[in-house]
Amino acid sequence: MSEEAPTENVVFVGKKPLSSYILAAITQLNEGAKRIVLKARGRAISRAVDIAEILRKRLGFNLEVKDIKTGTETLTTPDGKQINVSAIEIVLERQ
Amino acid sequence: MSEEAPTENVVFVGKKPLSSYILAAITQLNEGAKRIVLKARGRAISRAVDIAEILRKRLGFNLEVKDIKTGTETLTTPDGKQINVSAIEIVLERQ
Repeated sequence: MSEEAPTENVVFVGKKPLSSYILAAITQLNEGAKRIVLKARGRAISRAVDIAEILRKRLGFNLEVKDIKTGTETLTTPDGKQINVSAIEIVLERQ
Repeated sequence: MSEEAPTENVVFVGKKPLSSYILAAITQLNEGAKRIVLKARGRAISRAVDIAEILRKRLGFNLEVKDIKTGTETLTTPDGKQINVSAIEIVLERQ
């Protein structure tokens, strides 16, 4: 949904356990990332919010929610149908 | 999560069909509301984003996403346990 700098650290949230995505974000933060972008579509949106909250509240990275954007993306299903899904992008920044 | 003016039109999104909440929002808009706040917790968060997208894109109200906030709320389960759930608040405003 947004234009990204090439160095931006994006975590795509899907159906794996939350811990996988939290670990991915922590790894990027430990490698010096100042900014993490969580992206999710459809039912995974609420999971992205969970992950943002866990990163922000429970871990000592002093992250702040800098921006949240929502949008709609059009996907093509395996049988060729076009469907619209909602999407979210949560930008977390180190303070 | 935010302080609300007494006149604010809040739609709490839960497990009913999306159409119920869309209709609730449309009713408020037709009664002259300039601003609608969608609130949801847990798994309903992705549904709130769906509703915001449908209101914004498919209906002729010329709504814009003014603000999105996320947070954590602590609930007490019927058996007395405290659980944390993520929450979202999407503010839509008429242009």
